[in-house]
Amino acid sequence: MDACIDIGGTKVAVSLSSGSGLALFARRSEPTARTGASDALARQIVRLVEEACAEIGVAPQTVQRAGVSSAGPFVMRDGLIELAAPNICGGIAGPERGLPNDWITAPLEAPLRERFAKVRIENDCVAALEAERRWGALRGYDHCAYVTWSTGIGVGLCVDGRLLHGKNGNAGHAGHMFVSDNDDALCGCGNVGDVEALVAGNAIERRFGVDAATVLQRARAGDAPAETVVAGLCRVMGRALYNLTATLDLQRISLGGSVFTNNSEFLLPRLQHEVSSRFPALTAGCELVAAGLGERVGDYAALALLANGADAPAGPKG
Amino acid sequence: MDACIDIGGTKVAVSLSSGSGLALFARRSEPTARTGASDALARQIVRLVEEACAEIGVAPQTVQRAGVSSAGPFVMRDGLIELAAPNICGGIAGPERGLPNDWITAPLEAPLRERFAKVRIENDCVAALEAERRWGALRGYDHCAYVTWSTGIGVGLCVDGRLLHGKNGNAGHAGHMFVSDNDDALCGCGNVGDVEALVAGNAIERRFGVDAATVLQRARAGDAPAETVVAGLCRVMGRALYNLTATLDLQRISLGGSVFTNNSEFLLPRLQHEVSSRFPALTAGCELVAAGLGERVGDYAALALLANGADAPAGPKG
Repeated sequence: MDACIDIGGTKVAVSLSSGSGLALFARRSEPTARTGASDALARQIVRLVEEACAEIGVAPQTVQRAGVSSAGPFVMRDGLIELAAPNICGGIAGPERGLPNDWITAPLEAPLRERFAKVRIENDCVAALEAERRWGALRGYDHCAYVTWSTGIGVGLCVDGRLLHGKNGNAGHAGHMFVSDNDDALCGCGNVGDVEALVAGNAIERRFGVDAATVLQRARAGDAPAETVVAGLCRVMGRALYNLTATLDLQRISLGGSVFTNNSEFLLPRLQHEVSSRFPALTAGCELVAAGLGERVGDYAALALLANGADAPAGPKG
Repeated sequence: MDACIDIGGTKVAVSLSSGSGLALFARRSEPTARTGASDALARQIVRLVEEACAEIGVAPQTVQRAGVSSAGPFVMRDGLIELAAPNICGGIAGPERGLPNDWITAPLEAPLRERFAKVRIENDCVAALEAERRWGALRGYDHCAYVTWSTGIGVGLCVDGRLLHGKNGNAGHAGHMFVSDNDDALCGCGNVGDVEALVAGNAIERRFGVDAATVLQRARAGDAPAETVVAGLCRVMGRALYNLTATLDLQRISLGGSVFTNNSEFLLPRLQHEVSSRFPALTAGCELVAAGLGERVGDYAALALLANGADAPAGPKG
């Protein structure tokens, strides 16, 4: 069995895979560890894998391969990946951001390599993009992106048929772009007014005093103040999607994440308008769609990192 | 001999190359043709090549290879590149923009293929990036960008050691990103308030009633109002450079273009501050530098498209 691990800003999920096919077993999910020592998250993952093994009666030592799809960004320490994720590490933005720790980074690859023989860690949206290109809405597209609109905002990018990694595997952190002049929303990364600070799930609650699901439900029901809030969110997110299209000449963008997925029919035309109403020579032929893997994209993302290793794209750690 | 052709929003330059080494001969430059029929630009280029041949006594028919580094974006008609460049084609933004034509596109590849046996056309900043990676400030960098700050704003991108093209060869049009809420500056592409509309050479003159060279000269001399203007320009351009870094995890960005090149020592620390003051996990290790090829980057850009064809990156037209 292989371990498929999905690390988000809110939850950590672990599943087991038999190494063939798309079936995942013994899925376990918990709030992401954010208290105690900075290796709490790595220890949580190892414990969840052991618990999953116990649940289906597999000897833990038979699980020696771990595919890890994780919120980023990554930093390298002695050639091994640590997380510098703003929704996990409270030390990045400081106490004002309200996370219950002062971690600057959270060790990940080093502790996991003590437990597993093979570890492949990719940014969650790079991994999700790989899953969407294998099994989902991006099959056959060489110039495409996967965007998650969730606790945070993440992006995986593919241009000319190749996943983009960048110098530390952090390509795709476009949620930390600036697209407007708003200067009163603090992002977990320390930026003021970046895309994630304005429209991410946790930002909506901080800025408007109402959770994302509720404000979207109200907007769909025709509540005018909620419609105004959602129009503002779509303007910011739409500009981010347009910026990606103008920068990378994309054909298709697949969207997922908890904020988007439950409201995709409501949000898609509004976001598509923000893209298509700009510079036709750049935006014509760029289509926004809901992720083909839906709510399971996170689970399949980790699986994609282990599936068909031979034709998997090389990550920063190969 | 080969023809090296550089098409900008303001000027067209043609040089001849012997096909080996960096020497360029019989350079001729004229304002970019923008009146008459939409093939005026292509006819101008053919005429300049004939004139260059006459100047050094070469039979025109011996020039059968053309490398073309051109302002974009491109659109494809019957598989051949036409220009949809907002500083050349007046029909894109309409009469308010003030260009002396109503062209939606300008044919380029089709008429040049009637004259030359081999034609390779790339976005000017993709070509300049290739030149900077071969001979300039980006030698040895696998995650990098070339940015021109000139009549317009253009970008060439390289991630994981490969130039990025996108579906129509338009990757890099990041000058048409939105990074602020300004809504009173019309770009030639029809956007209101994108980066090019706010800080490009022609935009500075339209917005502030003074040409870019003068306002930068005054700022360097300590004139307070000019310093305020330049701080605003650097904020917008710096955000664009930061957005590229966050999106693509770059190591180095090389800058050129008429606005930048004459003021590089003044502008570089201001722009670097805009990048480095954000999210260290993404920006640490991303360095801004002046283009190693300086003012000649445009000429060498076209040459790079013909040099060592075997190891040249594949463009959309191969």
